[in-house]
Amino acid sequence: MNNPSRFSVTILGNGSAIPTQNHNHASQLIIYRNKYFLIDCGEGTQMQLIKYKIKYHKIDNIFISHLHGDHFFGLIGLISTYHLLGRERPLHIYGPCALENTLEKLIKVVSIKLKYKLIFYELKNKNKLPIFEDNHLSVFAFPLNHRVPTWGFMFKEKPIQLSIKKCFVDEFKPSIKDILNIKNGMDYIDSGGSIIPNKEITHPAPKLLSYAYCSDTKYDESIIEHIKDVTLLYHEATFENSLQDMATEKFHSTADDAATIAQKSNAGKLILGHFSARNNNLSTLLEQALMIFNSTFISKEGEKYLIS
Amino acid sequence: MNNPSRFSVTILGNGSAIPTQNHNHASQLIIYRNKYFLIDCGEGTQMQLIKYKIKYHKIDNIFISHLHGDHFFGLIGLISTYHLLGRERPLHIYGPCALENTLEKLIKVVSIKLKYKLIFYELKNKNKLPIFEDNHLSVFAFPLNHRVPTWGFMFKEKPIQLSIKKCFVDEFKPSIKDILNIKNGMDYIDSGGSIIPNKEITHPAPKLLSYAYCSDTKYDESIIEHIKDVTLLYHEATFENSLQDMATEKFHSTADDAATIAQKSNAGKLILGHFSARNNNLSTLLEQALMIFNSTFISKEGEKYLIS
Repeated sequence: MNNPSRFSVTILGNGSAIPTQNHNHASQLIIYRNKYFLIDCGEGTQMQLIKYKIKYHKIDNIFISHLHGDHFFGLIGLISTYHLLGRERPLHIYGPCALENTLEKLIKVVSIKLKYKLIFYELKNKNKLPIFEDNHLSVFAFPLNHRVPTWGFMFKEKPIQLSIKKCFVDEFKPSIKDILNIKNGMDYIDSGGSIIPNKEITHPAPKLLSYAYCSDTKYDESIIEHIKDVTLLYHEATFENSLQDMATEKFHSTADDAATIAQKSNAGKLILGHFSARNNNLSTLLEQALMIFNSTFISKEGEKYLIS
Repeated sequence: MNNPSRFSVTILGNGSAIPTQNHNHASQLIIYRNKYFLIDCGEGTQMQLIKYKIKYHKIDNIFISHLHGDHFFGLIGLISTYHLLGRERPLHIYGPCALENTLEKLIKVVSIKLKYKLIFYELKNKNKLPIFEDNHLSVFAFPLNHRVPTWGFMFKEKPIQLSIKKCFVDEFKPSIKDILNIKNGMDYIDSGGSIIPNKEITHPAPKLLSYAYCSDTKYDESIIEHIKDVTLLYHEATFENSLQDMATEKFHSTADDAATIAQKSNAGKLILGHFSARNNNLSTLLEQALMIFNSTFISKEGEKYLIS
């Protein structure tokens, strides 16, 4: 059975370009069935991982949304630390094309010969297939609308095989082939040719969970198709509504923008982040978003949120 | 007169290559007569500056000892933040040759056009002249002994003009030329041809203060000539004495090494830093150093130490 706490996000940094006392540069950790994924890696991410006592050696996949410093300047430090800690497992990095070359040059300048492999995947605008998948989870990248090429990420549970009711197995003793068919949603035809509907002989399918990361971006409805029905949406809300002009000019979103995207995507919940250093009052931001989308909350660094 | 608190160092990071909960990557702030200087700028330095409420916009000169990541990975982030904050004053950076090109490439990759000038000074092994000076202070760079080219820094007060006793001025009414000569240490010859010794007509010269930064380095007595009689010496003590072999192999120092350099340099005080992530017990490190050099203490992040 599925553990209801199998999927979570821990916010490591929810600030924007200028860090503040309470808001570090962008980074968050996704844990799915004990697999660790990092989204963005702003300066100080490794210190945040240490501060919140996260077993960061378990991270094998890092997704970088775009090449603004507050989203990746911490990556070279984390790569170096893994090297010093004797890492041997490869590290998979998904990011814009120029990232690979930038990392290679930095590694050369600091005269280290990595003890493990960096495996780089270039993000492209035409990704339709998942950029990562295993038996349970797929991760998709999709374009956001920012000043430089930027991607959002959608973490999506794969359809889970149905669980067959024990009383049916005891009574009909289905073959292995039948069992596989039923787990995949097919009806059962008994020896007399009668059809027993799948839903009568299986437990209800658990809800499939998903998480979307949309930062940095201006308001753009083309995002919606990629995050439709997401369980939890992290959307940037760099500015309060009164700074709409600045948001548009800088290709960022307001509270209204984020909440409207959440509403139109039929998201389960909305979590706001990427707060401007000007935002002294996050409760105003929250109030503004709540006017449009009821299940909104403000992200807090160090907090682990279940996706359920 | 000289303010006795005119010269200080604030420790921003005293860890080594792998950061820990209490030890960030290398960085420290020197304040001399309200001028701000940064030595090294490991990842997270800007966050430390913010955490300790330092007016970091006042930093105009940054000295980078060497190109290991824990000493400069935070520099590009600080440069970006200054840009975002609208800095217009130039920023002077002193470091190994490859740093300039590395910074230029990173600035290009993040698509920013700096609003202020970066003025770069290459550190060379044959620097004999100060790399920085103003009316009161000179900064010298000298080679340390590490795995890659590395420099230490010596901040040295310039000789201060003597202050003439008021009673002498009232009685002898010296000319402006005489006054300048006396302030520069010359004796006075009165109208009758008698010599009045300088020390009788001036207040005692204040002690000239100095600060030396020696990190990273293995034990090397060639450092001593550059830091002779320093008021406060920051010397790395990455390892306890029991790890002498590792220290030698990695071109780092032990507590003994640091204390011996302090003693042979006739330093006023010794402050230890660059602690390995293995060092759980800094009091052992301190005890070991104190056996050799009596005025030793352990640096603490966020602490401001007067150089006096």
